[in-house]
Amino acid sequence: MSAEALKEKAAQEAIKHVESGMRVGLGTGSTAKYAILGIAEMLKNGDIRDIKAAATSKETERLATEGGIPLFEIDGDGVDVAIDGMDEVAPNLDVIKGLGGALLREKIVESRAKLFVLIGDASKRVSRLGEKTPVPVEILQFGFDSTRKDLERLGCRPVLRERDGKPFVSDNGNPIVDCYFDEPFDTHAVALAISATPGVLEHGMFLDMAKIAYVAGDDGVIRLDRP
Amino acid sequence: MSAEALKEKAAQEAIKHVESGMRVGLGTGSTAKYAILGIAEMLKNGDIRDIKAAATSKETERLATEGGIPLFEIDGDGVDVAIDGMDEVAPNLDVIKGLGGALLREKIVESRAKLFVLIGDASKRVSRLGEKTPVPVEILQFGFDSTRKDLERLGCRPVLRERDGKPFVSDNGNPIVDCYFDEPFDTHAVALAISATPGVLEHGMFLDMAKIAYVAGDDGVIRLDRP
Repeated sequence: MSAEALKEKAAQEAIKHVESGMRVGLGTGSTAKYAILGIAEMLKNGDIRDIKAAATSKETERLATEGGIPLFEIDGDGVDVAIDGMDEVAPNLDVIKGLGGALLREKIVESRAKLFVLIGDASKRVSRLGEKTPVPVEILQFGFDSTRKDLERLGCRPVLRERDGKPFVSDNGNPIVDCYFDEPFDTHAVALAISATPGVLEHGMFLDMAKIAYVAGDDGVIRLDRP
Repeated sequence: MSAEALKEKAAQEAIKHVESGMRVGLGTGSTAKYAILGIAEMLKNGDIRDIKAAATSKETERLATEGGIPLFEIDGDGVDVAIDGMDEVAPNLDVIKGLGGALLREKIVESRAKLFVLIGDASKRVSRLGEKTPVPVEILQFGFDSTRKDLERLGCRPVLRERDGKPFVSDNGNPIVDCYFDEPFDTHAVALAISATPGVLEHGMFLDMAKIAYVAGDDGVIRLDRP
C-alpha cells in the first residue's frame, strides 16, 4: 500500500472520535490533511453537524475553509478532540512533532485537548524519542546564536533548518533549529531545560499528551493506547 | 534624596564593573537608563574604550546610539557584564523584572552574562518574590485565552496588561499578562511550570542569575552579593 493510502487509513480511524457539537483541533501536515478532508466529508454528508475547529497553521486554516469546516480561535475551554500526525512515536505515545514547522500552534491547541489522537504510518514507531529524527525547537531571531549555544550545552547538535537555501520561517515568523541527540536522553528533563532556555518559544516533544495513536501498516491499522 | 537621584547613585556604582574591551549588556527602564548614560560618559571621557553593547530593547538601542555606544547583536559568546534595574529583589538576589515590558530580550541577554549586576532603590527589597509585584509573563496572541487559563491553574490571577486602555504590546509584538500570587509560592517550580506552558515566551522571574546588586537608600548605596 502506498504511503499516502496508509496515512489516509489511519486518519479514517481517528475521525470516528469526532461527534456532533464538538470543538475539534485540526493538526498540520501530510497526514493530518486526510483527517481534515475526512471531517469535511462527514459534515457534507450530514454524519456530524455543529462542530467548530481550531486550526494549527495557516495551511490547515485554508484546507478547513475549503472543506466548509467552521473555524474558531481556541479559548479557555480548549477542544474536545485534537487529531494530528507525528514524526516519531515512542511506545508510551510520547512523540516528536514539528518537522513540518507548525509545532508551536500545534502544542498550544493539542495540549488543551480533552482527547489527543495521533495518526501515522508504521515507519514512525521508534523505541525511544530521538532515535531517527531531531527535536525541532522554534526560537526567536533575537539572540539566535546565544540561544543555539545554550541548546548545544544540553547535549545536542542544533542545526538551523533551511528551505531552498534560506532559513525556514514558521507561521509565527521565527526560525527553527533541529536538535540532533546522538545518545539516548531523559526526555522530560531535556524538555524542561529546553523550555526554560531564554529565546526558546517551543520544542517538538509532545510528552504525556496523546491518549490514542492509530498506526497504519500493510496489515491494517492498529490502535495504541497510552499505558 | 529623590527617587531619580537614588537610581543614578546605584547605577554609578554598577558601571565601575565595565572595563575597556568588554562586551556589555544594557538593560531597559528608568534605572538602567542611568547606567547607559554613565557608560556613554565614561566612553566620552576616555575612561574606557573598545566596548560594545547588546541592547535589551528598542528604547535602550536608541539611548545607546545617542550616547555613542557601539552596539552588536548578542552571539554565542554572550556578554562580560550586564547591568539592569529590577522590580523586586529577594535576599538571595532572585528578582522579578519586566514591569517595563522588556523581560524577554532582557533575559536573553542577561542570562548569557558572565556577571549580571542589578541596580535599584531600597524600595525594591522584599522578603520573597511576589510580595508586592506580579510576575509578568509574555505570551503569544495565538491561543491567548487558553494560555491564560493554564497560567491560572498554577495558582495566580493573570491579568492582561493594558496601556491607554489597549492591550500593551512588547517589542516582540506580544501581549503580557501580570500574574498575581496571593500566597508565597515555590519560585523555581512555578518558573519551570510557566516556561513549560505552551504559548508562553518568557516570564519575569530571573532566578540564580544576578551576582551583585547595588541598592541605593538615603544612607547611601549598599552592595549585596549572592549568598
